[in-house]
Amino acid sequence: MNQPQQLQAEQAARVLTLFSQHPPLIHCMTNDVVQGFTANVLLAVGASPAMVIDQQEAAQFSAIASGLLINVGTLTRSRSAAMLAAVTAATQQQRPWTLDPVAVGALSLRSDFCQQLLAYHPAAIRGNASEIMALAGQTVSGRGVDSLHGSLQAVEAGHLLARATQAVVVISGEQDYLCDGENTLTVSGGDPLMTRVVGTGCALSALVAAFTTLAGSRLENLATACWLFARAGEQARRQAAGPGSFRSHFIDALWQLSAQEVR
Amino acid sequence: MNQPQQLQAEQAARVLTLFSQHPPLIHCMTNDVVQGFTANVLLAVGASPAMVIDQQEAAQFSAIASGLLINVGTLTRSRSAAMLAAVTAATQQQRPWTLDPVAVGALSLRSDFCQQLLAYHPAAIRGNASEIMALAGQTVSGRGVDSLHGSLQAVEAGHLLARATQAVVVISGEQDYLCDGENTLTVSGGDPLMTRVVGTGCALSALVAAFTTLAGSRLENLATACWLFARAGEQARRQAAGPGSFRSHFIDALWQLSAQEVR
Amino acid sequence: MNQPQQLQAEQAARVLTLFSQHPPLIHCMTNDVVQGFTANVLLAVGASPAMVIDQQEAAQFSAIASGLLINVGTLTRSRSAAMLAAVTAATQQQRPWTLDPVAVGALSLRSDFCQQLLAYHPAAIRGNASEIMALAGQTVSGRGVDSLHGSLQAVEAGHLLARATQAVVVISGEQDYLCDGENTLTVSGGDPLMTRVVGTGCALSALVAAFTTLAGSRLENLATACWLFARAGEQARRQAAGPGSFRSHFIDALWQLSAQEVR
Repeated sequence: MNQPQQLQAEQAARVLTLFSQHPPLIHCMTNDVVQGFTANVLLAVGASPAMVIDQQEAAQFSAIASGLLINVGTLTRSRSAAMLAAVTAATQQQRPWTLDPVAVGALSLRSDFCQQLLAYHPAAIRGNASEIMALAGQTVSGRGVDSLHGSLQAVEAGHLLARATQAVVVISGEQDYLCDGENTLTVSGGDPLMTRVVGTGCALSALVAAFTTLAGSRLENLATACWLFARAGEQARRQAAGPGSFRSHFIDALWQLSAQEVR
Repeated sequence: MNQPQQLQAEQAARVLTLFSQHPPLIHCMTNDVVQGFTANVLLAVGASPAMVIDQQEAAQFSAIASGLLINVGTLTRSRSAAMLAAVTAATQQQRPWTLDPVAVGALSLRSDFCQQLLAYHPAAIRGNASEIMALAGQTVSGRGVDSLHGSLQAVEAGHLLARATQAVVVISGEQDYLCDGENTLTVSGGDPLMTRVVGTGCALSALVAAFTTLAGSRLENLATACWLFARAGEQARRQAAGPGSFRSHFIDALWQLSAQEVR
Repeated sequence: MNQPQQLQAEQAARVLTLFSQHPPLIHCMTNDVVQGFTANVLLAVGASPAMVIDQQEAAQFSAIASGLLINVGTLTRSRSAAMLAAVTAATQQQRPWTLDPVAVGALSLRSDFCQQLLAYHPAAIRGNASEIMALAGQTVSGRGVDSLHGSLQAVEAGHLLARATQAVVVISGEQDYLCDGENTLTVSGGDPLMTRVVGTGCALSALVAAFTTLAGSRLENLATACWLFARAGEQARRQAAGPGSFRSHFIDALWQLSAQEVR
């Protein structure tokens, strides 16, 4: 593995311009808690979200959409069947799909399902350190939703997963690490208040899914999604009086930063 | 068909006063993404929302509520059974019900289900141009959620649907057109930022459902729902720094505009 | 029954300090409409929310979490099975669980299910006056979601329920009453605008669930949850231009008031 490199602002700017020229339609099969926030994050950056969940329709739709997001936060057996149908259709149509393995490791239905999905070649996997380590088969202790490990600790697991699946693995935390099995890109910034708003991690996964649809270096493209998220977090923090107003300012910041790139 | 007429501010004011005197309880069977926003829009204008989704309870509740909203955005087979039970009960109890045929045309479960529902005489149908054209049986190309047609293009389809179902058909877009099979009312205004917030179309359908419960001209009543929505959009736009703050200002504006009418 | 006593600010301050030292992980099985708002309220006060809904996973998770919330707002048959599994596991592991009997009385599936759950010894029950009276078997007329009774009218029913189940019963309204079968604590304040934002009652139940995990007097602990909610409502009202901005300010106020206690 090569030494981690920091994503440069010029790289990010180039990718954001490309993104604004090719705004994708993202099929989101995500958890009950974050649906609205996820959709608003995608809309703010110029993408189109669509949540289609019936098994038959999900398979139809993932052949229409530019990319697919699978988030197992509120998995049920019937949803896992619909998700599998969507992943199968996306794979057949060569559409990239992204896995967010929320709380994998602690709970059995989602742990088994995520392991099963890894065979379908996700384009990206986005999780916190504990989730990435659990998904790579390392023993972790955890309460599910909060990472008890720093993101750096999971880099080795990230590369293992990347080599096994061909995905780019995004480990988010105070510092984000992106692993493709060989190279590591890092993105720093953001704000601790982001952990006091539900769905920021899940929405980052949706943004990652949106950036998997771009041509060029996937590692650099996905690092740009993290970079945009971190910049928006910093901008929102300067204006927020707490996590309630932060949420509004964060969406505004994503919109403003995306629009700046277009200019 | 007669020439389109613009809804006048005095007509809208009269309907809003009537609405404030008879705030309805609206039974919303809507999609997973927009539940909270839909409820907050109804609460802001003085109505009471209630989301009841079990098949047996939905049938019980739609006989209690003043009106019913059916939105097929995240349809599943079991939800379609519960929705049908609610529509049947509402029809038996002569409660008005409203259909929002989200992304109809592109996906088969919802397309078949919406066609089936048309036989149950909705009081209103609210969609974008592509959805209304697809529901009327016209061939449209589309990606589901975004309309690829201007609202004017769908006016003929709107009148066809209105005559076949006895519904008032609301085609929303930059300019809204309301069709009852013979007369056309138009409402203009709003703001493009409304398309960057998830659920504005769905919430307009809930407002339309609320206004179906009023006595008087249904065409004029539903045009007033569109008029209130457009005015709130313009007011919110003047205060918003992006789609995040727009969302809060929009709810505030609905509340302020409704309260003004009461005074 | 003894005379109602008002919760004192010094009592509340003591409990809030204790809470900040023991932030709980709350397993929320709540309704579709309020998931995000509920999670954001818990995060704002320093707690961790997790929504896990599959029957098997819910049972696993309620043995991991510090406390469990059951809210029947959008109950279905399959959800009731998962909720029962979670309640059973929580009871076996001696984790406190809280019942929010939304719209009980008017609708049969939830009414039967809530009666069944009462045998599992909830630590707390939080509802409006009509819900508490219906749950105690008193005949009430109502439309489900809005209480048609003042909270004082339900105090006798609250004590009946408390004695039958060993729960602390929280009757919320303009004035909140907390009943343990013998003593009554009251909390006043808040703002009418809270009734124009969806999910405030449901989120109060989540806060109540979080405060059931504390040592000491449960009556006083749960009254402190109500006190914090009322203070945040008043603070938000002073800054809000309507229910949209109120929602953001309310979350900010919870965060600020909680952080003040830590200092």
